[in-house]
Amino acid sequence: MEKTRPYVLLNAAMSADGRIAGRERRQTSLSGPRDRGRVDGLRAACDAILVGIGTVLSDDPGLRVHSEARRRARVRRGLSPNPLRVVVDSRARCPPGAEWLHRGEGPRFLLVSRRAPRERGRRLEERAVVVDAGSRRVDLPRALDILHRRGVRHLLVEGGATLNHSLLAGGLVDEARVYVAPRFLGGGGAPGLVEGAGFPVARAPRARLAGVRRLDDGLLLVWRFSTRPCPREFRDGAGG
Amino acid sequence: MEKTRPYVLLNAAMSADGRIAGRERRQTSLSGPRDRGRVDGLRAACDAILVGIGTVLSDDPGLRVHSEARRRARVRRGLSPNPLRVVVDSRARCPPGAEWLHRGEGPRFLLVSRRAPRERGRRLEERAVVVDAGSRRVDLPRALDILHRRGVRHLLVEGGATLNHSLLAGGLVDEARVYVAPRFLGGGGAPGLVEGAGFPVARAPRARLAGVRRLDDGLLLVWRFSTRPCPREFRDGAGG
Repeated sequence: MEKTRPYVLLNAAMSADGRIAGRERRQTSLSGPRDRGRVDGLRAACDAILVGIGTVLSDDPGLRVHSEARRRARVRRGLSPNPLRVVVDSRARCPPGAEWLHRGEGPRFLLVSRRAPRERGRRLEERAVVVDAGSRRVDLPRALDILHRRGVRHLLVEGGATLNHSLLAGGLVDEARVYVAPRFLGGGGAPGLVEGAGFPVARAPRARLAGVRRLDDGLLLVWRFSTRPCPREFRDGAGG
Repeated sequence: MEKTRPYVLLNAAMSADGRIAGRERRQTSLSGPRDRGRVDGLRAACDAILVGIGTVLSDDPGLRVHSEARRRARVRRGLSPNPLRVVVDSRARCPPGAEWLHRGEGPRFLLVSRRAPRERGRRLEERAVVVDAGSRRVDLPRALDILHRRGVRHLLVEGGATLNHSLLAGGLVDEARVYVAPRFLGGGGAPGLVEGAGFPVARAPRARLAGVRRLDDGLLLVWRFSTRPCPREFRDGAGG
């Protein structure tokens, strides 16, 4: 039985040579003010934001809607100020003090597997709903099905490279919006937009270039993987 | 004293996530027929093509002008059918049977350092001019100066990732033309457009986005690093 899932929009910023961070591996904003505004608009428009634990451990993002006006608009629509924040964390490695667990109002899910030590999950239960979503690792089709059943129709994925790979490998991405910054970051361990086991060229996921727009000093590229129409919530002049 | 150097145009094709090959590391054309024609036009228009030994060892490229019409046009202009082919090979690792040493007419330079075993260089001298261009490694500013003194004004660089890094690190690239293919290749050892030691974000080479053009199923991006005007030879509707 095929699982239902939300419309999955993967958003990222990369250098002109495909890196999402420099060799220091710490997050530095590669994008400019207009791109950051665009991403905040996507956060405000989606039902849930999904990231992998690697991103939490390296960048400690808050995953909030930054604009107060956008948060208020959500509340006027009967929603929480921030969308559901979801972290894929098979072994429940998330530190209890992580930013996304404390900053801003709104529901939070931690997706774990049965391999996660029970007491670690328990410590995090104060701040997030801990959801069993796999035996040894989080099963992503199942995770998306769970989110769909909880009402998530529009899911924004914000990396990192390993989660991007797993979603692409599973054919679970409908669309990717990639801001390309006018810098070249090179190797030395700098993570690429997609890491993981990679694909042989003949079996690499293909996309259709659905949009190209200059933004700040760089470029916003919109890639479509599926034929599902981009939902209205994600359209609003945001490059879709 | 600042060394003179040719106008350096770096050309490459990469996946939408910045990889120049899949995890199998072998060359597979990421571009389509129109992009391949564009690159052949650049080869016919330049004075010399430069690649690193890594590219020779992994892909064994011929580095020729493929179109007979273009080769004939070069001959009518009093040039060799193929431009000068140059390989950066500090330790003279190039196999004597390498394609670029045998296919097609035209001059060839092998740039080596003094660390290269003498007899290896000697074996290659039958097919290429072996040029001492550094003590432990090929000194790229010096190499470009040597090429300039031999009349090279328009240099086309075709990778690989390590040479791209060295040239960018040395501030030796005037322009990069990057074809972005609509595929995602991910990690698993797949080489990026730029490898080497990489750059911290704050010191990463910056470029100006000088051109964007849809080509085949992907996109051609033109990045300018210097303020040198793009020479006429590299313009001819090729995306500059």
